[in-house]
Amino acid sequence: MSKAKAVILLSGGLDSTTTLAIAKSMGFDCYALSFDYGQKQKSELIAAKKIANNFKVSQHYIMKIPLADFANSALTDKNIDIPNFKKTNEIPVTYVPARNTIFLSFAIAWAEVIKSQDIFIGVNSIDYSSYPDCRKEYIKAFNNMANLATKEAINGAKISIITPLIDLNKVQIIKKGISLGVDYSLTISCYQADENGKACGICDACGYRKIGFKSAKIKDPTRYK
Amino acid sequence: MSKAKAVILLSGGLDSTTTLAIAKSMGFDCYALSFDYGQKQKSELIAAKKIANNFKVSQHYIMKIPLADFANSALTDKNIDIPNFKKTNEIPVTYVPARNTIFLSFAIAWAEVIKSQDIFIGVNSIDYSSYPDCRKEYIKAFNNMANLATKEAINGAKISIITPLIDLNKVQIIKKGISLGVDYSLTISCYQADENGKACGICDACGYRKIGFKSAKIKDPTRYK
Repeated sequence: MSKAKAVILLSGGLDSTTTLAIAKSMGFDCYALSFDYGQKQKSELIAAKKIANNFKVSQHYIMKIPLADFANSALTDKNIDIPNFKKTNEIPVTYVPARNTIFLSFAIAWAEVIKSQDIFIGVNSIDYSSYPDCRKEYIKAFNNMANLATKEAINGAKISIITPLIDLNKVQIIKKGISLGVDYSLTISCYQADENGKACGICDACGYRKIGFKSAKIKDPTRYK
Repeated sequence: MSKAKAVILLSGGLDSTTTLAIAKSMGFDCYALSFDYGQKQKSELIAAKKIANNFKVSQHYIMKIPLADFANSALTDKNIDIPNFKKTNEIPVTYVPARNTIFLSFAIAWAEVIKSQDIFIGVNSIDYSSYPDCRKEYIKAFNNMANLATKEAINGAKISIITPLIDLNKVQIIKKGISLGVDYSLTISCYQADENGKACGICDACGYRKIGFKSAKIKDPTRYK
């Protein structure tokens, strides 16, 4: 019997790479989906390619979408600086409007075409609690909508949006990934990594990542500038 | 007081143009959003531009997305012929996976950026009852998800996905449009119009449109090949 297929949203960061490792360990035939959505730093896409290759996914598709034309986010707008790390409950300027909704929408389209019912996304409701589209109630509502949206769904297929990291903190995510053999030196979390993939060490994403490795008592393999 | 802004999904066809006319008549400041998603015929985008201009929308954005790379639809795949008109309850080969979900996802992103809470889409549950993403329960589920998806929603904005045509048949849609002064000669419904905007007269979209004008006893302004 052939393996069930799954679509995995892969940014090239720590969370999505761990999510891919989990999907793989569950026995899925993995199809990785990344987006060139106008993010200022492109090194995460280079990382995503290496990771997809490393995990021998059946297909890795990098979809180019002009979301940055709409988005007024620090991740896409050259005129908005990436802020330094600060734990907060406010939605940061790195928020990109409706990003996960757009990504997941393309994922259900691809899933329908390749006859997959399982979509993995590495959202995390703990460290990124202030992003609206990382919360459980959002994922549940998206899943409910997805099950009404497609031809396959109408014909009885049941789509599952799978979020294996949703209740884990960074330490638990890193430990899970290490147990599955993830090489975190391949991953890039930094919001402003340079063209060689070196991280700034001071943005929110670097902040959470650093604390994660330190608390997990695992040597941080990140290459800093 | 400035007018409330609305995002209107505009394909250049009869339904979406009527929807734009309705939004305009309700007093909204209209932002039209079209997609170059790899559809074989591009004349609908030329029509959309003319219509947006005709209605003096505040902005018309044509977003290019490579959905055709995924989609195995007669609308995007050169190897699948557009079938002739046939009333059916089956989902036709012109179905594009998750199309409305992707379009609406970009619409909520744009709405958030321009501070709009109202999104218009000309879906119709009567003539296109077999398309999963044209049904009321789908729109309701999308709206529910949208209200959990964005920063604006979290901050208390209430998004409305407005579907003024959902309960209307083609005759009622045409009569409504005519009462609002819509020039239907500008619109293109045909799935395979030629580069001059001339319709085939035999596809599903032409079939519904022809019957509509005939039953409404209104001269069909469509230019056929």
